[in-house]
Amino acid sequence: MNIPINKNLKRVVIIGAGFSGIQVAKKLRRDKYQVVLIDKNNYHTFQPLLYQVATAGLEPDSIAHSIRNIIKNTKNFFFRLANVDYISTKKQIIYTNVGELFYDYLIIATGSITNYFGNKNIEYYSLPMKSIPEALNLRSLILQNFEYSLLTNNQKKKKRLMTFVIVGGGPTGVELAGALAEMKKYVIPHDYPDLDNKNMDIHLLQASPRLLDGMSKTSAEQAYKNLKELGVTIWLNCLVKDYDGKVVLIEKDKNIETANVIWAAGVKGAIIKGFLKEDIENNRILVNNYLRTIKYKNIFAIGDIAYMKKNKFYPNGHPMTAPPAIQQGNYLVKKFNLLLINNENIDKNYPPFIYKNLGSMATIGRNKAVCDFSFIKLKGFLAWIIWMFVHLVSLVGFRNRVIALTNWIIQYFQYNKSVRLIIRPFCRKKKVL
Amino acid sequence: MNIPINKNLKRVVIIGAGFSGIQVAKKLRRDKYQVVLIDKNNYHTFQPLLYQVATAGLEPDSIAHSIRNIIKNTKNFFFRLANVDYISTKKQIIYTNVGELFYDYLIIATGSITNYFGNKNIEYYSLPMKSIPEALNLRSLILQNFEYSLLTNNQKKKKRLMTFVIVGGGPTGVELAGALAEMKKYVIPHDYPDLDNKNMDIHLLQASPRLLDGMSKTSAEQAYKNLKELGVTIWLNCLVKDYDGKVVLIEKDKNIETANVIWAAGVKGAIIKGFLKEDIENNRILVNNYLRTIKYKNIFAIGDIAYMKKNKFYPNGHPMTAPPAIQQGNYLVKKFNLLLINNENIDKNYPPFIYKNLGSMATIGRNKAVCDFSFIKLKGFLAWIIWMFVHLVSLVGFRNRVIALTNWIIQYFQYNKSVRLIIRPFCRKKKVL
Repeated sequence: MNIPINKNLKRVVIIGAGFSGIQVAKKLRRDKYQVVLIDKNNYHTFQPLLYQVATAGLEPDSIAHSIRNIIKNTKNFFFRLANVDYISTKKQIIYTNVGELFYDYLIIATGSITNYFGNKNIEYYSLPMKSIPEALNLRSLILQNFEYSLLTNNQKKKKRLMTFVIVGGGPTGVELAGALAEMKKYVIPHDYPDLDNKNMDIHLLQASPRLLDGMSKTSAEQAYKNLKELGVTIWLNCLVKDYDGKVVLIEKDKNIETANVIWAAGVKGAIIKGFLKEDIENNRILVNNYLRTIKYKNIFAIGDIAYMKKNKFYPNGHPMTAPPAIQQGNYLVKKFNLLLINNENIDKNYPPFIYKNLGSMATIGRNKAVCDFSFIKLKGFLAWIIWMFVHLVSLVGFRNRVIALTNWIIQYFQYNKSVRLIIRPFCRKKKVL
Repeated sequence: MNIPINKNLKRVVIIGAGFSGIQVAKKLRRDKYQVVLIDKNNYHTFQPLLYQVATAGLEPDSIAHSIRNIIKNTKNFFFRLANVDYISTKKQIIYTNVGELFYDYLIIATGSITNYFGNKNIEYYSLPMKSIPEALNLRSLILQNFEYSLLTNNQKKKKRLMTFVIVGGGPTGVELAGALAEMKKYVIPHDYPDLDNKNMDIHLLQASPRLLDGMSKTSAEQAYKNLKELGVTIWLNCLVKDYDGKVVLIEKDKNIETANVIWAAGVKGAIIKGFLKEDIENNRILVNNYLRTIKYKNIFAIGDIAYMKKNKFYPNGHPMTAPPAIQQGNYLVKKFNLLLINNENIDKNYPPFIYKNLGSMATIGRNKAVCDFSFIKLKGFLAWIIWMFVHLVSLVGFRNRVIALTNWIIQYFQYNKSVRLIIRPFCRKKKVL
């Protein structure tokens, strides 16, 4: 990988430039460590806004930021664009598609991938939304199917092309359903006057008895109400059994005919090869309360991939979202910077990681959002303004903020999603029957 | 294609939503014709700024605009996303990948494609820049090769990855060379401090004895001087013979080792199947001075594809650029709207098309451009400001203008290209040896 060895500094390798990894890479003291960051992309993705890329509200450059631009001071810092193949925990070597690399300390921040729960059909025929190329594929699919539905007089086919099924009623599913409902309301009449927008159906399928499981009941009910008002059909206690590209099979022989299934039903840790069975539980890497892996003193895991099983507030592990990832990154970087990392016993003299839940929020559409804070729950316009403000300031980089804000202002006054461009058409290898 | 037949209106089909086609589609009177526009993309591309997409200065959404958003009033107007397979001039039917369509009048505005002059190696190994996906591929290639050159200690390979050869010294080649030279100056030291930017070489190869053949000698000399100052190596009277992915062969056994060849050396008309040999000359469709094809009274051609051979100011046909295309679109639409199109003889009672050259311009880099107007020639900062202004107002759509301007302002003050994201990595099917 052509990284010089510095005899005076231990090398810390971070795998993954998501919310947790980028924190560590930014803040680790370079006078104390040589820092190497590896990612398969040359950019950091602000995943909470992916749904806006998918629904033509924002372009990738608003929510992605070049890693080399985030970390400008490159003294003792090295970024490498690489795919990790596997890790030898014995030899302390990472093997990648562009060569191998020795580490003194390893921080695993690989995040999570879409979880299809083993269903190969769903994996093949539905669309995920975990990365920018996936969000762009989804955008192309949506816009293409509007175009295709214009071309047919077969009412059944037309309906199938204009029916959208979102599986998963978490924040992603709720925000996506809201954005699609707004496309139905504003974009179809504007762009496709010869398509009847009453033909467009949006279904949101949730396995549990309520939406937004991680949020308060008040907010979940408000989101339910708002989505209903926007015309979204919500199915609670609803498990998807299969999908063949044409029909979604739901329990008890119910089904929905659709050409568009968006899978937002779950994620699982992005495990790297080289770990043993006992290192992993629930598809995540087991860590102690200090984010250190159980067996390898020099390996840590943070973010979605880390499974802190024993912690008392979240016995099933922390939520796989941005806030715990950021806090874990900051926790670890502090300990590294205090040089408290050399000796495992020092863990005991330093407080364990405790996640502070600062609140959560979801937007449903124009002027509509829900926010849960410990001291107050908000809804409607105020919640929407707060949602926008929080997301704007959380975006990395001045340019991204300016461009996203400019887009939102234009959209607010133009009442429609602006970037309805099919830059790269989406097509599956196998044709749908 | 599911387009209703209107018994009272003749159907005009326009193929291509480039500069000429979109003019006609926008302005044709819908109380007099049913208008159908066909394009393989759902957006119109502002091609003069493609080089900024390739060099990470702008995102596609600044220079592309949704066709359905350009033409909002859709009474008697139909846009169809389709690839045209061939035309039966006898049956007056267009055959496409999504069905067939009868026309009363046909306007061919298919534009042009990259001309490799028959060299298959160059076609395979070099990169063109005629469309947005191509510009994005080029961006990925440039950024990837910076990353790869970090990974190697082999100086020869490093050099090859950081050497850029642009073939073609027209406006595209000149603007691209300038933008790459600015990347060398501002981006490499910022993003890749461990890459020596002296290793980055930019070559501009021009077949004729001067740059910017279509512009004045003064402007060409100024561009030459500016590019030299920016460190670009310019080869005049230089013909490329071959390229194998590693070495560009030039005449007289000279060659340049490079992994990056950008082909901006020529275009040719994008001919559709269904025309006869005698309908075509110089890879363009022959038209009379009224833009009507020679043999088919109801078929017209405008823009790059149209070859008006006999006109006295441009005996070799009009330049294949935006201004003639726009003027031809406007000329034709006027005649259609005056119902002067039904009878070929009426051509004689209406003045032939005459292209008014309003001037031309090219930008070389920050604060540097050249403009040729009939009354004055400009260079430097003033020319650059005019260049920006003209391009901004020429962009279609309020949003595109705002986003492009915002990007340019941010870049002007940040001194670097902002969107250095490799969203979809570029790779060839065959690996370079």
